Amino acid sequence: MADGNGSEKEAVVVSNKQVVIKNYVSGFPKESDMEIITGSIKLKVESGSKAILVKNLYLSCDPYMRLLMRPQGWEEYSLLKSSQGLFKIEHTDVPLSYYTGILGMPGMTAYAGFYEVCSPKKGEYVFVSAASGAVGQLVGQFAKLFGCYVVGSAGSKEKVDLLKNKFGFDEAFNYKEEPDMNEALKRYFPQGIDIYFENVGGKMLDAVILNMRIHGRIAVCGMISQYNLDQPEGVHNLMSIVYKRVRMEGFAVFDYYPQYGKFLDLVLPNIREGKITYVEDIAEGLENGPAALIGLFSGRNVGKQVVVVARD
Amino acid sequence: MADGNGSEKEAVVVSNKQVVIKNYVSGFPKESDMEIITGSIKLKVESGSKAILVKNLYLSCDPYMRLLMRPQGWEEYSLLKSSQGLFKIEHTDVPLSYYTGILGMPGMTAYAGFYEVCSPKKGEYVFVSAASGAVGQLVGQFAKLFGCYVVGSAGSKEKVDLLKNKFGFDEAFNYKEEPDMNEALKRYFPQGIDIYFENVGGKMLDAVILNMRIHGRIAVCGMISQYNLDQPEGVHNLMSIVYKRVRMEGFAVFDYYPQYGKFLDLVLPNIREGKITYVEDIAEGLENGPAALIGLFSGRNVGKQVVVVARD
Repeated sequence: MADGNGSEKEAVVVSNKQVVIKNYVSGFPKESDMEIITGSIKLKVESGSKAILVKNLYLSCDPYMRLLMRPQGWEEYSLLKSSQGLFKIEHTDVPLSYYTGILGMPGMTAYAGFYEVCSPKKGEYVFVSAASGAVGQLVGQFAKLFGCYVVGSAGSKEKVDLLKNKFGFDEAFNYKEEPDMNEALKRYFPQGIDIYFENVGGKMLDAVILNMRIHGRIAVCGMISQYNLDQPEGVHNLMSIVYKRVRMEGFAVFDYYPQYGKFLDLVLPNIREGKITYVEDIAEGLENGPAALIGLFSGRNVGKQVVVVARD
Repeated sequence: MADGNGSEKEAVVVSNKQVVIKNYVSGFPKESDMEIITGSIKLKVESGSKAILVKNLYLSCDPYMRLLMRPQGWEEYSLLKSSQGLFKIEHTDVPLSYYTGILGMPGMTAYAGFYEVCSPKKGEYVFVSAASGAVGQLVGQFAKLFGCYVVGSAGSKEKVDLLKNKFGFDEAFNYKEEPDMNEALKRYFPQGIDIYFENVGGKMLDAVILNMRIHGRIAVCGMISQYNLDQPEGVHNLMSIVYKRVRMEGFAVFDYYPQYGKFLDLVLPNIREGKITYVEDIAEGLENGPAALIGLFSGRNVGKQVVVVARD
């Protein structure tokens, strides 16, 4: 790091705190799988290089990151190989951290999954699992704005209250208090489910499949309940997708990034007018990143988990 | 049956052999779950009634019937409550029994599942399970005509030979000789599977999911391996439908019956020109119906199972 040649003598070198994965992580991840080290970085890009130096302000904690937990890490500054895939933030009248959530990957995921994959119709019955999370809270609000009936499940009373009182879900329940998920779904959807936005997998999916309506749609966004299992749970009721002629579709947000402009046109005015709200769970400081990430898998976060590295 | 009133004195009463289900059938069905009885039927419809009297010539044996095995049955003559849902057969230059198979429900199922549900593209890699069956043999031929690469699985050497030599599949294998289905699929589809026409479920589906290509499609027609199980097998690899952005869709042929005319326009010329062939496994006589139906679940039939009740 100190091998600067003549022309770069004046480059400032700063310390660069990083969160790194110590080992390959299997099973339920632990904070101790990560460690915080302090490196240093030269605040200058080599002349002629296409690299980009960025100072990281907000970090996103998302369940999919579990799948990427190989030696990599978070840090205060990052030298990126090129500017490919980066864009300049134009709208700064909304919190900058929103670009890790409602205006970032989770927001686009909710948008693509609900509007594009689920092909919703007004008046349809929508169920969202992990409904207070980064994606779920938006799916519910999109569905309400669209004129659907929406029920969400979450893992605590606080989250259930949020769903009903802040995000405007028609109903919500704490899945941990339901001994029989099939029975619970029959109670909340006596007429069945048209659209299921799937975030959790396993037993929940098995119960939902039994409660789908004819020509129902399941957008499979993720299966957080399965990521830490060595052997995923079996889903037994798939034959019901034939009886009910159900479409079940896995999707990935990056297929929909070309629609990002259209998405902003929909979401930004709704944010500004207070018609869509977004709850973040903010961890302060890179040091708290590992705990924040691990917390996702026990549902400790309430709303979108963000780590503030710096505010500017 | 002998209580005809004055105006119907002249009605002929004939004996009417029937196959009836003795009890509700659970687990693997047995021939002894059915019995053959001889009733009688008056060959006349009450005046003023909309009922229709039919003489049954060919009976279809299809796996889905397992799901309907409640007290009902087959018979030589049937008095139907109305003519709703019936149509007159116009094209009799092809074998009449084809209307239980290639020109009936299985044919429409193959057509709807392949063309409508799978949205095939020329050159795609297609896998069909239970590929020599009533539906599978047609899916494979449709896919070949469409310009796809097609591999089928079946349960005997005789069936595998049929797939390769009679139906023109590019490759075929006996699933009973494959100790590791995932490994077998990787061998036949080193580049992965774009389209899976699902007829069997369970372990086969679990292995296929792992081998799907990005944006692959699974048309779920049935899951014959699961119908006789009290508790269906679990499918563990569903998370792969997110990684690969796979669409998995259950469908029912009756949603597509309005396209029957279009279907005949495609299939009839191909039959007449010998471009599509159809193999039937004909059981002679109603007495042999129970064995024929039961045989479906051990794969005893080679091709579409038909029961001839009468030839005219």
